[in-house]
Amino acid sequence: MPKEVVIVGAVALGPKVACRLRRLDPEANITLIDRDNLISYGGCGIPYYVGGDVNDLEDLYKTSSHAVRDKEFFKSCKGINVLTRVEATEIDRFGKKLKVKHLDSGEEEYLAYDKLVIATGASPVIPPFPGSDLPRVFTVADLHDAEKIKSLMARGKVGKAVVIGAGAIGLEISEALTDLWGIETTLVEMEDQVMPTLLGKCIARLTAKEMEKKGVTLLLSERVLQITEDSENNQCVVKTSHNTFSVDIVVLAAGVRPNTELAKNAGISVGMSGGIAVDRRMKTSDPNIYAGGDCVELRNLVSGENMLMALGSLANRQGRVIATNISGGQSHFQGTVGTFCIKVFDLGISKAGLTYRQAKLTGFDPVYAVVSQADHAHFYPSSEMVYISLIADRRSRKIIGIEAAGKNGDAVKARVDTIAVLLRHGVDVDEVCGLETGYAPPFASAMDVINNAGNALDNILAGHNRPVDAADFLFEFAHKEIKVLDIRGEKEAAPFIEKYGVQWLNIPQDQLRSRVSEVPTDEPLYLLCDTGPRSYEAQVYLTSRGIMNTYNIQGGFAMIVVTDPEFI
Amino acid sequence: MPKEVVIVGAVALGPKVACRLRRLDPEANITLIDRDNLISYGGCGIPYYVGGDVNDLEDLYKTSSHAVRDKEFFKSCKGINVLTRVEATEIDRFGKKLKVKHLDSGEEEYLAYDKLVIATGASPVIPPFPGSDLPRVFTVADLHDAEKIKSLMARGKVGKAVVIGAGAIGLEISEALTDLWGIETTLVEMEDQVMPTLLGKCIARLTAKEMEKKGVTLLLSERVLQITEDSENNQCVVKTSHNTFSVDIVVLAAGVRPNTELAKNAGISVGMSGGIAVDRRMKTSDPNIYAGGDCVELRNLVSGENMLMALGSLANRQGRVIATNISGGQSHFQGTVGTFCIKVFDLGISKAGLTYRQAKLTGFDPVYAVVSQADHAHFYPSSEMVYISLIADRRSRKIIGIEAAGKNGDAVKARVDTIAVLLRHGVDVDEVCGLETGYAPPFASAMDVINNAGNALDNILAGHNRPVDAADFLFEFAHKEIKVLDIRGEKEAAPFIEKYGVQWLNIPQDQLRSRVSEVPTDEPLYLLCDTGPRSYEAQVYLTSRGIMNTYNIQGGFAMIVVTDPEFI
Repeated sequence: MPKEVVIVGAVALGPKVACRLRRLDPEANITLIDRDNLISYGGCGIPYYVGGDVNDLEDLYKTSSHAVRDKEFFKSCKGINVLTRVEATEIDRFGKKLKVKHLDSGEEEYLAYDKLVIATGASPVIPPFPGSDLPRVFTVADLHDAEKIKSLMARGKVGKAVVIGAGAIGLEISEALTDLWGIETTLVEMEDQVMPTLLGKCIARLTAKEMEKKGVTLLLSERVLQITEDSENNQCVVKTSHNTFSVDIVVLAAGVRPNTELAKNAGISVGMSGGIAVDRRMKTSDPNIYAGGDCVELRNLVSGENMLMALGSLANRQGRVIATNISGGQSHFQGTVGTFCIKVFDLGISKAGLTYRQAKLTGFDPVYAVVSQADHAHFYPSSEMVYISLIADRRSRKIIGIEAAGKNGDAVKARVDTIAVLLRHGVDVDEVCGLETGYAPPFASAMDVINNAGNALDNILAGHNRPVDAADFLFEFAHKEIKVLDIRGEKEAAPFIEKYGVQWLNIPQDQLRSRVSEVPTDEPLYLLCDTGPRSYEAQVYLTSRGIMNTYNIQGGFAMIVVTDPEFI
Repeated sequence: MPKEVVIVGAVALGPKVACRLRRLDPEANITLIDRDNLISYGGCGIPYYVGGDVNDLEDLYKTSSHAVRDKEFFKSCKGINVLTRVEATEIDRFGKKLKVKHLDSGEEEYLAYDKLVIATGASPVIPPFPGSDLPRVFTVADLHDAEKIKSLMARGKVGKAVVIGAGAIGLEISEALTDLWGIETTLVEMEDQVMPTLLGKCIARLTAKEMEKKGVTLLLSERVLQITEDSENNQCVVKTSHNTFSVDIVVLAAGVRPNTELAKNAGISVGMSGGIAVDRRMKTSDPNIYAGGDCVELRNLVSGENMLMALGSLANRQGRVIATNISGGQSHFQGTVGTFCIKVFDLGISKAGLTYRQAKLTGFDPVYAVVSQADHAHFYPSSEMVYISLIADRRSRKIIGIEAAGKNGDAVKARVDTIAVLLRHGVDVDEVCGLETGYAPPFASAMDVINNAGNALDNILAGHNRPVDAADFLFEFAHKEIKVLDIRGEKEAAPFIEKYGVQWLNIPQDQLRSRVSEVPTDEPLYLLCDTGPRSYEAQVYLTSRGIMNTYNIQGGFAMIVVTDPEFI
């Protein structure tokens, strides 16, 4: 008898399970159901549709060969039954059947299954303040939302917007509104940085500055209290802890929450993080029911804790695993190291593992290095700067996180991905120093930025390099009378000497050995060069001459200038 | 007493050892000697200087902060003594002193050492045919060669050139001559493909086609017999096994050979590959003598055999290891997995591990998959195709090699580097299927090309996917009356049906299930789609209907078109 397989949810994981299973098992009856009429789409493409990089909504549910992935496509090309506008309302685990409701007719029926797959995804978190349900307040969870916002903008109805939440979606949507549509956009975040669950302060600062440079008004540590309607002007009034704005639309981007009701009501285990619990074969607590995608919790392979990680790429990989297992094979999904990337205007940002804050919370003793260096050979014309923050555990020397940013997003991702794939293998600092990535001047440096991130961390752990990061330095410099020893050339240092007077000393690198007697020894000195290596070298030299009270500004002037463009 | 450290060779590894050692040991007397007057330069940048991407020769020996790395720089900035135009002639290991000759004065002297570092590099192989020493025959081993060639071209003296050897340097120099200078360039290679030691036939074919498309005349399986002078026309006459050319210059790019005389004459072990033997601390058979860079042999961490790998990036990483060890620390250089990348006109090419041929020779049972897919989400406007060939050992399922090419070299390198860094960990096919690299539509697909390379290989190993690569298919198609079943749309197939008649069948994917009775079962069928996944799906479906005699053309039409642009 052919196997009956029912899959609830037809966006990312659901179709992947169905298609792979069809290829492995030509006999199975595969039924894919979804509440929506639009299925099998690239949800991660929504901000690009809103922003205009993707013109037609259809492009998000077309294959790379331009076939529209609708019911008919799944039937004729794949031999898969699709039921749209159908909601799963109840699992009868004992009877192995799923109760569903046809949303248009109201009819209910039971679908029998041998194996059931729950791919119910996640829904946007609706923050608890009054007014989040007003008509001009949107989420961007599906294609219908996207279309509504875009058509409002296309009709010229939107001049000002507030986006609430500076996570990934909040940033992408802010860019979409600002960049193509020229909408005056204010992004409100209650934490003190952008992407607080994804980035540490250095790369977050740099990202925030890029947003501001491109015209987004960014309000951190600010909480939305309520939204009210101004029906006279067709506007919303957003009241925050510090401000009041009248805007045409509000976009809620306060994160997502796994859709677990169906599972929970059937008595299937839900984990501490709020996602459905699954084993390494993506099986739930019921051996005939699998789950995957945004509705499950995953093991974080760095921290060892379970976590939520709503990402289409993980859903796809899990879908393949589920299909293999349903068809009688054995395949494992071990968890995630939290690899992530995003484009924010002209910046590519990429990360994997834990942030410094998360590492502390998880019981590591984190230490980090920040480096800035060109992605390609510095003499090659196409090079752009990459900024990397690499985090290790002090005792074990194991890498526990990496974050990076730069204008060439592919090159940024290249560096982070090499560490990401090694995290589960317990890569240590020494391995990063010698990491054998490809080298040719158009694509890398002989000692690449990723190796130098390892080298810097190695030197910090050995005590040779006593660092301060650019953000901390800027804070200190703004609040105390600290002194900088600038070891760049006289020309580079001159405007700073003029602006900051006695706070700014200059001894160019090639004169440091002969002028070492001029170096003040009675107070801390912050050593600065272009990108960090020379100030490190100066620090080592000064240490050898007994001048120990120095801090090496990590990433040098290059890092300062992206952390606070107004410093100069 | 401060340590006396003498370093022979001041291009890549030598300066790295010197500078790192200075930072670790402020007291040591460090002396760096070189036969040349130009030192510490980016030798890998020579083709870009010749080709004009790098304008000034100085840029190749300037730091990223624009300081010229000369004797004075090393003295004042680093506290390192540099002796240029000085040749090391003999090591007195018993007396721990190095005999050197000042090339300009002829004077000789001894330099005492506690630790000696041999960084003598490699020299171009001069092929044994007559005429390789003629004045218009050049190598491109150092900056002087580069300057000579460039000044000839700048004076308009070069209209035609022959480059001998289609290894990395041969390709880079051919591009440099053709691209900026418009020189009619013929590249002669005695093997049957470009980069025979670096690439398998699929990616090599694709590279060759790019060269030809950009105007280079590529002659494979052709041997140079002699070069003679035509002094009347200021030309060389190159006679090969098949042709005779009159050209203005000849560039020899027949590989390099490690400079081991100094070591050999001192009785230091030289390995089977011809490079100086070193242990994991980069120590030679003499405990007071280290060696590194292009003059040593390295352990290939995939094959387990020792090999030569002349690459500035490896030299730099080794330099750091040597300095740590000399200063009393413990650091290891374990070997290489042969990671390599190169730009050839508009193509970025990247590889790691063994080629199919090398894998066979080393006793593996290699099996490979070829995939073509966009580097970014297919709906995102900036996407470019990436072509990947992934090789595993059949029995162990361990990955032993990867090769890739594409227009976005950073994106190509990103994929290859993730596998490269895992090779020494014994990564298997399953790990590649689930590889957690960063995903966002501007930078990757939800199921990225690297995952799909793993998936394809997994399906091949499982017997679900019975592949033929594009090059083999094209050969068969040209020589036999084989039949293609094209499952793309009618419009895509029409020109091929017109051109190839009965050899070309077309049943679009969405009709395959209803028209399966039309599929011929009495002869082999070559299944074709755009990039491979649909023809694989068709193959699986046909198999389930008892039609087993099919081959899935790997990488689909996308791969065919770059393998043989004239096929259409």
